[in-house]
Amino acid sequence: MFKILRINMSDLSIKKEDIPEKYQGLGGRGLTSAIVSAEVDPHCSAIGPNNKLIFAPGLLGGTNCANSGRISVGAKSPLTGTIKEANSGGQPGGYLSRLGIAALVFEGQPADNKLYKLFVSKDKAELSQAEDLRGLGNYDTVERLRKTFGDKAGYVSIGMAGEWKLAAASVAFTDQDIHPVRHAGRGGLGAVMGSKGLKAIVIDPTGGEAAPIADKEAFKEAAKRFAKAITDHPVTGQGLPAYGTDVLINIINEAGGLPTRNFSAGRFEGADKVGGETLNKITVERHGTPTHGCMTGCIIRCSGTFLDEKGAYVSKWPEYETVWAWGPNCGIDNLDAIARIDRACDDIGVDTIETGNAVAVAMEAGVKAFGDWAGAEELIKEVGKGTPLGRIIGSGAAATGKAFGVRRVPVVKNQAMPAYDPRAIKGIGVTYATSTMGADHTSGYAIGPNIMKVGGYVDPLVPDGQAELSRNLQIATAAVDTAGLCLFVAFPVLDIPDALVAIVDMLNAKYGLSLTGDDVTSLGIRVLKMERDFNERAGFSNVDDRLPEFMKIEKLPPHNHVFDVSDEDLDSVYKF
Amino acid sequence: MFKILRINMSDLSIKKEDIPEKYQGLGGRGLTSAIVSAEVDPHCSAIGPNNKLIFAPGLLGGTNCANSGRISVGAKSPLTGTIKEANSGGQPGGYLSRLGIAALVFEGQPADNKLYKLFVSKDKAELSQAEDLRGLGNYDTVERLRKTFGDKAGYVSIGMAGEWKLAAASVAFTDQDIHPVRHAGRGGLGAVMGSKGLKAIVIDPTGGEAAPIADKEAFKEAAKRFAKAITDHPVTGQGLPAYGTDVLINIINEAGGLPTRNFSAGRFEGADKVGGETLNKITVERHGTPTHGCMTGCIIRCSGTFLDEKGAYVSKWPEYETVWAWGPNCGIDNLDAIARIDRACDDIGVDTIETGNAVAVAMEAGVKAFGDWAGAEELIKEVGKGTPLGRIIGSGAAATGKAFGVRRVPVVKNQAMPAYDPRAIKGIGVTYATSTMGADHTSGYAIGPNIMKVGGYVDPLVPDGQAELSRNLQIATAAVDTAGLCLFVAFPVLDIPDALVAIVDMLNAKYGLSLTGDDVTSLGIRVLKMERDFNERAGFSNVDDRLPEFMKIEKLPPHNHVFDVSDEDLDSVYKF
Repeated sequence: MFKILRINMSDLSIKKEDIPEKYQGLGGRGLTSAIVSAEVDPHCSAIGPNNKLIFAPGLLGGTNCANSGRISVGAKSPLTGTIKEANSGGQPGGYLSRLGIAALVFEGQPADNKLYKLFVSKDKAELSQAEDLRGLGNYDTVERLRKTFGDKAGYVSIGMAGEWKLAAASVAFTDQDIHPVRHAGRGGLGAVMGSKGLKAIVIDPTGGEAAPIADKEAFKEAAKRFAKAITDHPVTGQGLPAYGTDVLINIINEAGGLPTRNFSAGRFEGADKVGGETLNKITVERHGTPTHGCMTGCIIRCSGTFLDEKGAYVSKWPEYETVWAWGPNCGIDNLDAIARIDRACDDIGVDTIETGNAVAVAMEAGVKAFGDWAGAEELIKEVGKGTPLGRIIGSGAAATGKAFGVRRVPVVKNQAMPAYDPRAIKGIGVTYATSTMGADHTSGYAIGPNIMKVGGYVDPLVPDGQAELSRNLQIATAAVDTAGLCLFVAFPVLDIPDALVAIVDMLNAKYGLSLTGDDVTSLGIRVLKMERDFNERAGFSNVDDRLPEFMKIEKLPPHNHVFDVSDEDLDSVYKF
Repeated sequence: MFKILRINMSDLSIKKEDIPEKYQGLGGRGLTSAIVSAEVDPHCSAIGPNNKLIFAPGLLGGTNCANSGRISVGAKSPLTGTIKEANSGGQPGGYLSRLGIAALVFEGQPADNKLYKLFVSKDKAELSQAEDLRGLGNYDTVERLRKTFGDKAGYVSIGMAGEWKLAAASVAFTDQDIHPVRHAGRGGLGAVMGSKGLKAIVIDPTGGEAAPIADKEAFKEAAKRFAKAITDHPVTGQGLPAYGTDVLINIINEAGGLPTRNFSAGRFEGADKVGGETLNKITVERHGTPTHGCMTGCIIRCSGTFLDEKGAYVSKWPEYETVWAWGPNCGIDNLDAIARIDRACDDIGVDTIETGNAVAVAMEAGVKAFGDWAGAEELIKEVGKGTPLGRIIGSGAAATGKAFGVRRVPVVKNQAMPAYDPRAIKGIGVTYATSTMGADHTSGYAIGPNIMKVGGYVDPLVPDGQAELSRNLQIATAAVDTAGLCLFVAFPVLDIPDALVAIVDMLNAKYGLSLTGDDVTSLGIRVLKMERDFNERAGFSNVDDRLPEFMKIEKLPPHNHVFDVSDEDLDSVYKF
């Protein structure tokens, strides 16, 4: 039976409890959002003792289901003030599942302001001081912990940014190579972890078991069908394995929706130099690995290994959104610099999307020039040093806009927009505006139907139909995030009818249930409603579900559109 | 007939118009809020072209009514995102009235990013370039302008902070000595002025006339009664003239409500060293002026002149809130340092309350130590230089809390609290929570009835009755701000029945009306409703009318109370 571990950082006690009835049938985002919504005062300080920080693998975690090892992190967000869930690949999610842990719930705050680490294994859960790790980046932190806890463990940690409680601070998870390169990046969850005095979690799965399954045969058969759907689909079977997520650079550029120089244009002249094709090419030239999974059980393997010109490891392949945030959005076309920045972000522990946007905003203010990749590298170093300038950047795009008096700041609910301009790709604009998380592409990835013609097609430049599209995607995504599946399974799920059936079959086989596809929809709706309810109690309403003014008054070249989905349409997203 | 001047900063055109019917019968805050509410999109960028910046003297401006020369400045606030009105003493308000100008309305934004100044006289209104003033503080700006426009004019200007569009930037108004020491301080209105490319306004009243009055005899008689009420009341007749507003330091300290070291205690051991009695004493010792009016027609004259040890002018007497913000709230007991900082704030053009709070928050984070007055002076210099650290401080307390990961941040709607702790003086807590302006003592000054026993008495430590108290004060204040009267007239108005009658009589005599006291109440309610309506459309609701969490969970010594006015009570304030 899965358990919840409650770790009280005020008195350093740990309590194991059965999953309360109200949380049963939930995992991943569904579980983190249920706990935050039920247990956290929406008015609390996000970095105070009354916030809670929750780690939860998904409902299919710890099984042989492909790409099921994601881990959700939830809390009230220091960046947005809303509820927040950010999920990550890497090893820890699957390891927690193998230990029979449905969730780690961190509560309170140490009175002594000291740093601690949690060790979890089959036999024990133990807090101990971690002052020796203070001030270390994620790489050094993991390196230090490996010496004690070895290579069998998975590591969760924060870098300096989390310790400093910066609003762009992320939570790092180690990948299969025990590098801290997978991150729950968005919304400042690393700051919540820092506010709890929690520097790291070490998860040793030794002796743990695959999750119990009610009907093993049925599960195996469904898992096989699901895997086939993933490998059959051109995006997950071919595009992502070959070029990584960075394959999108040229696609989104062609679509005129690649935000360039702080969202002032939709095409970047240097796109090809930083796109997935180039990434693949230089990786092969440098004898790196272009196809590599971020977690055990991944069969998409979109994450390559980035080597420098001398063949030394720099980082995992930077994701599309990272390449964009620090590349086109800053007018930068230097992939080596971007990879170094990606590594620095992973090490310091900051969201690449938020900080890249912050730097673009700073560039608009003239702090550095657009295109100045050396300047961008200087700025990320400032973040790592915790200088005042670094703290501005590390507090995100909105904070940077405030500090430097910039009007064009691409945020919703204070969270910076990812790599798709809503004026050229209107479905994603609806998601940014209405997501319970602030501007977030992953919560309703309209790029599929708008651009890639996956799951049908809705013209990206036409306002009509985008609200319905986003609503359906947001519901499906909430369910996928609850299952613990990598969001990229949405590609086959949207195009190959049997993929969703296979997921339902696996849930039924694992838990001895008899769910239907409609139940998955209901689950997604239930999660969104809990999140929305929290946000309403925190003071958010439909009036906050809007894009920033400049997107309604400044036309984006080359299509020269503004964002013109009506407020009525935006308000219709949550009418279910 | 009074006119509105509309100054379009996009095309540099100026239009004079009659007061539209919907704005008639309004002045000061009533007029600025009416224009903002009717004409500004609540979703616009506060520093973008669609915000408007409005200057309006009050309904009694330009008359011989005592203390009637205040000027209101209105816009959407870059700090709070709400509607904003901040008003100031000084000469420009009365001068505008004498020119027959009910309001200056600045619209748009110059495409060339250049700085401009507006010159207004009896015969003309003219925009001209002001690039030569770029980067100058308010003192140098006024000094430079005086050489051209002389000593008969009144000057309105922004310092560097306004040019940089910092959220704590103020708008400066010259006093009778032509020093830029009276400020519309709160809510970042200087940033709005900067965003309009407006460095200064020069108002030459030469040839202007006293405002036309329908019944001069009746007005004169009522004005006399009003003046008598002011001089008869002990606060306005004796306390304020002798000790300035700083007289409150020892009073509020005694009450246990003097926020000390970033709102961690309610009494400061060094209070007496920075209180009004000391201020008066050293002023007399240094042959300064302890009793001095900030504007023509002031008969309270609470603003002395602060001289340094050698007898040289430093600044006007720092106000109580300034002395508190940079004194007790930073653990500082050095009045000379505080006066130098006050001068620096006036020169740079930042709100002393917001920046003092920001520095206290930074001190809590360890940027400087509490009590380090030299460190505080260094920080205000950083603001003046526009360094990253200075930009953090200049963006206010909330921004500083974000940058340095501080949980105890005393703000409501992102605006820092003034010099009264809501846990020990609960009526002012209701005003902070529910004001349309964010935390603002001037919008419903419950200190009168809670502490000074002016206008009755409500025990400051008891939660009951505070909501009703604050409601009535907020209504009365909105009316006083509309009349253009100095808020200190509220002391006699609350205690001497004839004072309100005299105000009504003056309004009737000036405009040929037959208002009653009830009409004044209706006017106040009308203004609050317009402001509240704007805020609701901007996304604010009763859920935002709350104090920060720490005031509900941390007890304030010496009374060891938390803020315990119920949410229901807070929500009752706007039920009228």
